[in-house]
Amino acid sequence: LEMTEQLTLYTAKICPYAHRVELALEEAGVDYTRFEIDLENKPEWYAPEVNPASKVPAIAYGGPKVAPDHPSPDSTKIAESLVLVEFVADLSGKLRPADPVLRAKGRFLIDAFSNTFAPAFGATIIRGEPVEPLLAAIEKVQGLLSPEGYALGPEFTFADAAIVPFFARLEVLLKGDYGAYEEGTGAKAYETLQSDPKFARYRKYLADVRARDSFQKTFHEEYVREKFATRHANARAARKAAQGSH
Amino acid sequence: LEMTEQLTLYTAKICPYAHRVELALEEAGVDYTRFEIDLENKPEWYAPEVNPASKVPAIAYGGPKVAPDHPSPDSTKIAESLVLVEFVADLSGKLRPADPVLRAKGRFLIDAFSNTFAPAFGATIIRGEPVEPLLAAIEKVQGLLSPEGYALGPEFTFADAAIVPFFARLEVLLKGDYGAYEEGTGAKAYETLQSDPKFARYRKYLADVRARDSFQKTFHEEYVREKFATRHANARAARKAAQGSH
Ligand SMILES: [Ca+2]
Repeated sequence: LEMTEQLTLYTAKICPYAHRVELALEEAGVDYTRFEIDLENKPEWYAPEVNPASKVPAIAYGGPKVAPDHPSPDSTKIAESLVLVEFVADLSGKLRPADPVLRAKGRFLIDAFSNTFAPAFGATIIRGEPVEPLLAAIEKVQGLLSPEGYALGPEFTFADAAIVPFFARLEVLLKGDYGAYEEGTGAKAYETLQSDPKFARYRKYLADVRARDSFQKTFHEEYVREKFATRHANARAARKAAQGSH
Repeated sequence: LEMTEQLTLYTAKICPYAHRVELALEEAGVDYTRFEIDLENKPEWYAPEVNPASKVPAIAYGGPKVAPDHPSPDSTKIAESLVLVEFVADLSGKLRPADPVLRAKGRFLIDAFSNTFAPAFGATIIRGEPVEPLLAAIEKVQGLLSPEGYALGPEFTFADAAIVPFFARLEVLLKGDYGAYEEGTGAKAYETLQSDPKFARYRKYLADVRARDSFQKTFHEEYVREKFATRHANARAARKAAQGSH
């Protein structure tokens, strides 16, 4: 697809929100310039010149062709991952089924995902709360997937781009037992996800998405695993130090 | 606009989320059957046969033409107000500007509204927390409006449908001093909103929307005011009773 305007994506390999937009751009076949933001050491120009919220993802669209680290004031800056996924769909005319009912099912699925999986993910991984609500959230989202194929049926759509980056990262976290929970909790939950017949649809769905070029090009599993491992080791050391000080 | 499928909206005059969808349907010129749900006494068939979350708004789309209080299992049931506003836009081809950048601005505005105004509204009105963050949220949303016309410019769009029902209800609440805050707080904030030059754009915007047929047809101001007044009186009596019991 030939775009009339330049499009620069500010992103970070670690971030599932940014990954949504990379998947959307790859699947839509949109030409774009990718710029990695180091989230632990953001360039000083990023917040004032690209995204005042200082988060990824963000897109600079239109304006002159410039180096990504010298963004032009003449491009339009857009932020928020779901806004950007819809933007890529609007730009390209791809990623969304033609049927308004299917589009509504996709948006409802994303809303349910945001309201169930996303908070449960943070609760379990970051705060070490029980893993059961997280597994229940996966079951709930799984129940909203089309019985076969991708989230809305045979075609990959915006709904897949919105949810898969989180599933993929969760598997890395649980498999490595990286999280604020008691040791062994993540590894056990990972085993459940891989073997319990209850999660058969989830497994097939994720395997189908993993097989796609767009996913392989945009998910840097070993990089993500190492980052999570380092964060986990640091967080555990900090918790031990805090306990020792009592 | 002639629809090929029947569309039934389950709604409630009091509810700003449901009002979003009524505005969208009226502005898009979609034919629909309106069914009022009494939120304090929901029909027993509503959750099992229309919306398992038991909330309004919900739409039953397609299937045979039936009485709204005998919904058909053959219609598609869709819930969540923002999903429904986009659904009406997809069905009708109206409500959204053609330009992808403007659409993204609309979705970003709605997201900012959901993350700032909506929680501040609940905090002030329901929990009686200070009114300043709510006024700051209005200023923030105001800053995202097009300098003239409606939220995205000269045409009424999905972004207007999404935010105006909340502004309209807030004005009724503050004007009547209905809220969990100290007496006089709401009335004073209302006065600020009506006279402070800082809120000039907000005032003009809301006046422009109020003048539209769609708004006048769908906003039942006196009904809403009476409901809020009753709720407020009941909540105040409950608080006094709770204090008396100490
Ligand atoms: Ca939401």
